[in-house]
Amino acid sequence: MTRAFVETIGFIAGICTTLSFIPQIVKILKTSKTRDISFVMYAVLTMGIFLWMVYGILLGELPLIIANGISFMFCLAILTMKLVYGRR
Amino acid sequence: MTRAFVETIGFIAGICTTLSFIPQIVKILKTSKTRDISFVMYAVLTMGIFLWMVYGILLGELPLIIANGISFMFCLAILTMKLVYGRR
Repeated sequence: MTRAFVETIGFIAGICTTLSFIPQIVKILKTSKTRDISFVMYAVLTMGIFLWMVYGILLGELPLIIANGISFMFCLAILTMKLVYGRR
Repeated sequence: MTRAFVETIGFIAGICTTLSFIPQIVKILKTSKTRDISFVMYAVLTMGIFLWMVYGILLGELPLIIANGISFMFCLAILTMKLVYGRR
């Protein structure tokens, strides 16, 4: 396996996990409903992604910082909508 | 920052993002409802986490393999339940 191939896999993986939250955000914006979504999941996930970003900052690894920085904002948005829409 | 401190941050981050899916699984098992959960999000996220695991295998990085291997199973479980329970 070449280094370029391995890095491409990592790059595609990062794009997938980062952008995956967008369809959930769009769905909530359309329906205003978050009842079936777990608050605890997004609370713990948002904290975890924030710590991955801190880890990236400490290592000085820009891809980790960018991917987790964007994911953090998306997860925080879902968590906020869950708080706003409550049990609807 | 010591190396041990940086690794501890990464370790806690990995535990958070991996275990975060458990409350969502428990919630679905209790309610049998997945209507507000985005199918596209979990389809893309499951694929992304699978690719992170492949990336870990190619790099020979056991922490990446373990964390993403477990997360992959959890996400696949949520995706399967979304398919089974449909729009309920």
